[in-house]
Amino acid sequence: MCGIFGIFGHQEAANITYLGLYALQHRGQESAGIVSSDGKMLHLHKSMGAVADIFKKDVIKTLKGTSAIGHVRYSTTGGSLLKNVQPVMVNYAKGMIAVAHNGNLVNSTELRTVLENKGSIFQSDMDTEIIVHLIARSKLSSFQDRIVEAMEQVSGAYSVVFLNEARMLGIRDPYGFRPLSIGKFQGSYVLASETCSFDLIGAEYVREVEPGEVVLIDKNGLKSFKPFNEVPLAPCIFEFIYFSRPDSIIFGRNVYSVRKRLGAELAKIYPVEADMVIPVPDSGVPAAIGYSEESGIPFEMGLIRNHYVGRTFIEPRQSIRHFGVKIKLNALREVLDGKKVVVVDDSIVRGTTSRKIVKMLKKAGASEVHVRISSPPTRFPCFYGIDTPTRNELIASTHSIEEINKYLTSDSLAYLSVASLVKAVGREKSYCKACFDGKYVVGFSDMPDEPQMALFGN
Amino acid sequence: MCGIFGIFGHQEAANITYLGLYALQHRGQESAGIVSSDGKMLHLHKSMGAVADIFKKDVIKTLKGTSAIGHVRYSTTGGSLLKNVQPVMVNYAKGMIAVAHNGNLVNSTELRTVLENKGSIFQSDMDTEIIVHLIARSKLSSFQDRIVEAMEQVSGAYSVVFLNEARMLGIRDPYGFRPLSIGKFQGSYVLASETCSFDLIGAEYVREVEPGEVVLIDKNGLKSFKPFNEVPLAPCIFEFIYFSRPDSIIFGRNVYSVRKRLGAELAKIYPVEADMVIPVPDSGVPAAIGYSEESGIPFEMGLIRNHYVGRTFIEPRQSIRHFGVKIKLNALREVLDGKKVVVVDDSIVRGTTSRKIVKMLKKAGASEVHVRISSPPTRFPCFYGIDTPTRNELIASTHSIEEINKYLTSDSLAYLSVASLVKAVGREKSYCKACFDGKYVVGFSDMPDEPQMALFGN
Amino acid sequence: MCGIFGIFGHQEAANITYLGLYALQHRGQESAGIVSSDGKMLHLHKSMGAVADIFKKDVIKTLKGTSAIGHVRYSTTGGSLLKNVQPVMVNYAKGMIAVAHNGNLVNSTELRTVLENKGSIFQSDMDTEIIVHLIARSKLSSFQDRIVEAMEQVSGAYSVVFLNEARMLGIRDPYGFRPLSIGKFQGSYVLASETCSFDLIGAEYVREVEPGEVVLIDKNGLKSFKPFNEVPLAPCIFEFIYFSRPDSIIFGRNVYSVRKRLGAELAKIYPVEADMVIPVPDSGVPAAIGYSEESGIPFEMGLIRNHYVGRTFIEPRQSIRHFGVKIKLNALREVLDGKKVVVVDDSIVRGTTSRKIVKMLKKAGASEVHVRISSPPTRFPCFYGIDTPTRNELIASTHSIEEINKYLTSDSLAYLSVASLVKAVGREKSYCKACFDGKYVVGFSDMPDEPQMALFGN
Amino acid sequence: MCGIFGIFGHQEAANITYLGLYALQHRGQESAGIVSSDGKMLHLHKSMGAVADIFKKDVIKTLKGTSAIGHVRYSTTGGSLLKNVQPVMVNYAKGMIAVAHNGNLVNSTELRTVLENKGSIFQSDMDTEIIVHLIARSKLSSFQDRIVEAMEQVSGAYSVVFLNEARMLGIRDPYGFRPLSIGKFQGSYVLASETCSFDLIGAEYVREVEPGEVVLIDKNGLKSFKPFNEVPLAPCIFEFIYFSRPDSIIFGRNVYSVRKRLGAELAKIYPVEADMVIPVPDSGVPAAIGYSEESGIPFEMGLIRNHYVGRTFIEPRQSIRHFGVKIKLNALREVLDGKKVVVVDDSIVRGTTSRKIVKMLKKAGASEVHVRISSPPTRFPCFYGIDTPTRNELIASTHSIEEINKYLTSDSLAYLSVASLVKAVGREKSYCKACFDGKYVVGFSDMPDEPQMALFGN
Repeated sequence: MCGIFGIFGHQEAANITYLGLYALQHRGQESAGIVSSDGKMLHLHKSMGAVADIFKKDVIKTLKGTSAIGHVRYSTTGGSLLKNVQPVMVNYAKGMIAVAHNGNLVNSTELRTVLENKGSIFQSDMDTEIIVHLIARSKLSSFQDRIVEAMEQVSGAYSVVFLNEARMLGIRDPYGFRPLSIGKFQGSYVLASETCSFDLIGAEYVREVEPGEVVLIDKNGLKSFKPFNEVPLAPCIFEFIYFSRPDSIIFGRNVYSVRKRLGAELAKIYPVEADMVIPVPDSGVPAAIGYSEESGIPFEMGLIRNHYVGRTFIEPRQSIRHFGVKIKLNALREVLDGKKVVVVDDSIVRGTTSRKIVKMLKKAGASEVHVRISSPPTRFPCFYGIDTPTRNELIASTHSIEEINKYLTSDSLAYLSVASLVKAVGREKSYCKACFDGKYVVGFSDMPDEPQMALFGN
Repeated sequence: MCGIFGIFGHQEAANITYLGLYALQHRGQESAGIVSSDGKMLHLHKSMGAVADIFKKDVIKTLKGTSAIGHVRYSTTGGSLLKNVQPVMVNYAKGMIAVAHNGNLVNSTELRTVLENKGSIFQSDMDTEIIVHLIARSKLSSFQDRIVEAMEQVSGAYSVVFLNEARMLGIRDPYGFRPLSIGKFQGSYVLASETCSFDLIGAEYVREVEPGEVVLIDKNGLKSFKPFNEVPLAPCIFEFIYFSRPDSIIFGRNVYSVRKRLGAELAKIYPVEADMVIPVPDSGVPAAIGYSEESGIPFEMGLIRNHYVGRTFIEPRQSIRHFGVKIKLNALREVLDGKKVVVVDDSIVRGTTSRKIVKMLKKAGASEVHVRISSPPTRFPCFYGIDTPTRNELIASTHSIEEINKYLTSDSLAYLSVASLVKAVGREKSYCKACFDGKYVVGFSDMPDEPQMALFGN
Repeated sequence: MCGIFGIFGHQEAANITYLGLYALQHRGQESAGIVSSDGKMLHLHKSMGAVADIFKKDVIKTLKGTSAIGHVRYSTTGGSLLKNVQPVMVNYAKGMIAVAHNGNLVNSTELRTVLENKGSIFQSDMDTEIIVHLIARSKLSSFQDRIVEAMEQVSGAYSVVFLNEARMLGIRDPYGFRPLSIGKFQGSYVLASETCSFDLIGAEYVREVEPGEVVLIDKNGLKSFKPFNEVPLAPCIFEFIYFSRPDSIIFGRNVYSVRKRLGAELAKIYPVEADMVIPVPDSGVPAAIGYSEESGIPFEMGLIRNHYVGRTFIEPRQSIRHFGVKIKLNALREVLDGKKVVVVDDSIVRGTTSRKIVKMLKKAGASEVHVRISSPPTRFPCFYGIDTPTRNELIASTHSIEEINKYLTSDSLAYLSVASLVKAVGREKSYCKACFDGKYVVGFSDMPDEPQMALFGN
Repeated sequence: MCGIFGIFGHQEAANITYLGLYALQHRGQESAGIVSSDGKMLHLHKSMGAVADIFKKDVIKTLKGTSAIGHVRYSTTGGSLLKNVQPVMVNYAKGMIAVAHNGNLVNSTELRTVLENKGSIFQSDMDTEIIVHLIARSKLSSFQDRIVEAMEQVSGAYSVVFLNEARMLGIRDPYGFRPLSIGKFQGSYVLASETCSFDLIGAEYVREVEPGEVVLIDKNGLKSFKPFNEVPLAPCIFEFIYFSRPDSIIFGRNVYSVRKRLGAELAKIYPVEADMVIPVPDSGVPAAIGYSEESGIPFEMGLIRNHYVGRTFIEPRQSIRHFGVKIKLNALREVLDGKKVVVVDDSIVRGTTSRKIVKMLKKAGASEVHVRISSPPTRFPCFYGIDTPTRNELIASTHSIEEINKYLTSDSLAYLSVASLVKAVGREKSYCKACFDGKYVVGFSDMPDEPQMALFGN
């Protein structure tokens, strides 16, 4: 998963971009990069690691100019190597161009083969690099025409910002899979994956970039185009459930409020008699509050999260059990002992973590543990930019809810239905729910790997 | 502030110590170190930075042996330099010895002068180094006798663990200022500042080290001594309010439960009509839950915390206002707009952060903001190991509550009284409350710096 | 300037390549790189810095396989950045390919423009990258045919080695500007810029790669082709004078012996009555020995060289005079005091260093200093791969020998004539002597920069 | 072995010290350090590595003030760790003091035991640290008195410079083992192990510090004392043979001239009929020139040295023979083929390198190889500061010259006699020749290790 940010026409462009990425850090902690333009040339700095570690004062200083785009990344395609860090910046016949991309192309393998057969040399494994090769081969003369010609050839999910010496351009794919919003900060336009970026810098939220919309920003202001064929809308519903920050507005709705409604919906449909509702922090907090409010069962922080968990961690030997969870969470015996507990989480992927949490709660004295999940069972992998395991590893793909409940050792387990989910989010838009229902809106030729082939037989 | 950990007689001593420090990371993120003993010699690794960044697999491997002690540090005395990182490990006539110290000595300047005049050469600015010089000069023959002789000469707050080739020794000063607990893990004794360390590794909590108690742990097991003169007890009440982790038991009580009671007490004494109670995350969460429960006003997470805030941060120019807070917190307009809000925090130091929070809440639409603090006004600096600003900088030292309320721009402001605080914590022990009432239990000759001199005229 | 090395079919290919580069370190200390092939894919490591600092044991281990090519570099085209370090390794439609290049192309600007207009994206500023783009666009099917088609389009000086998964290929341009030799080591073929590489690893010298020759080495052994049109020979005579190591054989002759003959020739034509002959160490040593032998004047090491001179050096303030030379050389008063001295050097570029040496010798007591240069005046810049300053900076381009003698403050100054130089090297080959006579064998469209344009008016 | 430097009262003290150390780099490449004084406090920077790598501009800037001392080190006592890098700088009751020490104390073990029993804590393994503990325990009131009292207690070889806030002090031990000279630079006094330091910065050589002399330098100028009891002189004769730079004056004589005389003496006593004299570069060059001049046999550089040899080197497998030497030296077949060769070196330690050189020369075609060594057989280890192997490893300690000749596979081998050595150096001083004759001038209690005990049975 990734986050993107851009600003045009501000004296502190690189610094603002750094702050914007800071607020988007939850969308990718693996690597980050910024490209700035001083009007004559582009400047790039990118590295593995966290935003605050990469961009020190002296680095920011080298990113001269009044426009900049930035990217934070958790790899979906391309391994974890410096060459696969974004933005991608290249020289080509028409000058310099940089691109930052959130999403996943589904026809990248075939496009790459075609380009290589024509003599293109690729420097990375990223699908994003295909975009710049397509632009470099375009015969069209304007910046925006070359980009649109390139994007017409790619298929899949993308919210993307481009920068050259004199212009910034943002696009959201026609399906609108990933969010991208327009803001205004001290007279300059900003683009960001989530509006929490705008809040951090103090920018005003203007509106979403619409699905299929191209916004070109230069010294004359913002121009909007809709050059692509219209297709059914498919914004990713998982952004609400887990991925986006609760303080962001995406697809026109506040994430925290949606999550509270998901929790309240759960409480209505799957009530349970209990002494307290506790969240799996931090992502489960709003839904747990919603559940507590709707049910009247008191809310408690029965699981304490250690916020100093680092990226690399030395696993101890098997003698220390349930380790992966304990490094992050601790259960509060004083609160839980002898109590019936509802524990609310956003989703279950492999089930191993949930099982450890249930066991931890029982070991801390909970007499009953009722698991409530604020989304439907996750049964299908995502090919549009969220990093999910293959289908075989998704517990809900191969097991019934009853079987999962048994595996978790919980006293009861309930998921939201797809219908309730849509109701809680709001019905007026259609969403991509492929991870729940397997209905993939965009077909694809690229099969990620053999084991996943099988799933399309279903 | 600091955290200490020790384990004796375990095959994975250094690895367990690393995990123990991980759980204590909130007590000091500036630097960390571990000393292990392989029975013949000690091995040391220490560095500036976070536990998970310092102790990689290859470093842990070099820390051979079956006993280890560790330390995390946020400097109280001694600047932020590698030479001031603990544990302190030295060679002296009787072999090697290492020490990890949580607290602050109040007679270090005079002891150091005496030692230097006798020819001792100091390598650091830490008061902890005085302890090893006193040990090196002792004529007594046993490990424990030399240590006790040394500790009889120092005055102030200390919970401390020592390690030599064959023994581990833990001491809590006679006043019992700082916590230190005994646990048992797979047959081995462990010592830790907080019990959340025990939970992480899966150790069983045995009991506190008592004020003035010396515990000597070697191949024959644990022996306990009480060699010091008895004095009035003075465990630090601020450990409950802010410093310790909510999932720890310190001084015999669970921190989360105490904090909830502080919030409930606030709600009883300083009620207010409002639409919601919100915490300043994360430290204000338990008290806010307590306030919500007691008052019946709904609990909401109206402020969202960014957990990716790094240690170094580039300040933007003044054009971006309220920056220091916005990098960490964001207010949820959808939740707050048009609402009367009670915001609960644990304490107010300088007042600048609280003021920014109140303004942020109002900007997000809150119609009224009522600030409730789950401790009395912080009026006096701490000389026993908590890093507080000088008295002049403590807003409550120079301003009335009414004046502070005006400064914060809040609609009302209330603190707990000292009496209510003690009641909520539990009356059966006497505590050090010097930061609230200025009653310093241990006198001191070391004046930290001139401006603070004045405060004793009060 | 650069040095290249390659080996095919040896269990320790990367390690041998590392040693080969070690012996070529004098040809480039700025950066180095090695690419190895394990039969299925290529592995690359390259970095700024010295060979021995870059290639540690753990790095060598990652360079798997039984073939490897390597490069050491002192930049001629392309700035000093990691992206400009060789070998260049890329993925293209036909697999992976790597290239290491010694020399300088003279039509790189126009080729790059053509390629970029067709949509090629360049990642570096090196002329070497043009070669791989030409290969990637070739429609021919064999490794060697694609390479030959590419090399037919480039013009200038190049000795070059290529590596793909299964083959190594070496080429010397038809003029034969730069050296490249074939050796045999434990049954495997090796290629190297200079034969001193063969001596270090213990390889046997087989023969030079001939001008215009392509040698293809694979599991079937070595095959030779001569696919290019024949042109006049032009091996670089400056390799003998300064660049190559004295223990190498290049263009069929040993460098040390040639340099001694240059010194002897100088002594015959420009004798002087003196007490001793001293070299400017290290490059002037063989010519000084030749001068001493021919003239009968005793040889002394009157200038001592500091061999610990690092790459970066902090310049002191002007108060310390003649600094640039003194950090490297010191004059021996005990040897020089009151003596008439002949000082022998290989060439004079700007004249500033020679002037400092003359002054240093006089300050150390020399009563007369006679400068003898074992080459003709350097009047023209090199466009074929040796890094020389622009024409304006070459003292001999703008001043007569008499004027230079005056500037140096020497008592006499003599250079070899071009005729004597050719005689001493041996007449049977024709050489590129453009740096002395301005006769550029290959015309060029790329003008390095404006100031040099002027020189072609001469 | 080590080199020391000091300057008092110069605006660029740290920069000059850096340059001085640069010229002394041959005396120690393992680590380096500088301490400066700004009049109020001392500033230290030290590190493993080479002078030019350690002292960059920004580091030099931190070394404020107008006096400085520096040290380069190749370890004799104390392992290769940062804590063992000099200068040693400490705080003690009287302020700050730093010391840089060249030599080796022979009673350090007993002194350290005494000090530790009194409660001193040592931070390193260096004998140098004993000196500062003795100073810290002195009850005397002046800087110089405390130092002299300390130095009266130590025994062995030392040339040493001290620095405190306001004074610099240099001492040479009463035997005068190691060199130390006084220079004057732009009105400021400088002290250095060798005069080549003075030449580099442009300082004027004043005189040697005399054996047993203390020179105190402060704002009032230089004062000299002779506080120690007089003992027989014993300057180290090996400084002339190998250790010092040829351009230095030590013990009143120029090293290059002494070495030439050693070579000439060899030629007189051990003549041989041959085609050429070649040196083992670089240390054998002056003696080879002396041999050539005296014998009339032509001088040639038949062995070429690779000057880019790094500090760390990956050893190839056994398949590459004679490797250790080949990485440094290459033999010139064109010069040596069919010739009778005299090869001159300064000394033979283990014999393995010499044997490889003889074999390399024969493989390059030499018909006869006659080895001439410009010193007597090295039979005894040095305890006064030169890093030699234990006696068992010294080939001349266990084998006759005839046996060594056979081992080397040379056609003849000759060493200088001790008498000829003394004659060539000059008779008027008595020297320490313990490495040749086993006569140790200063007795010692510290036995470095068991195997060496045996040697005193001789």
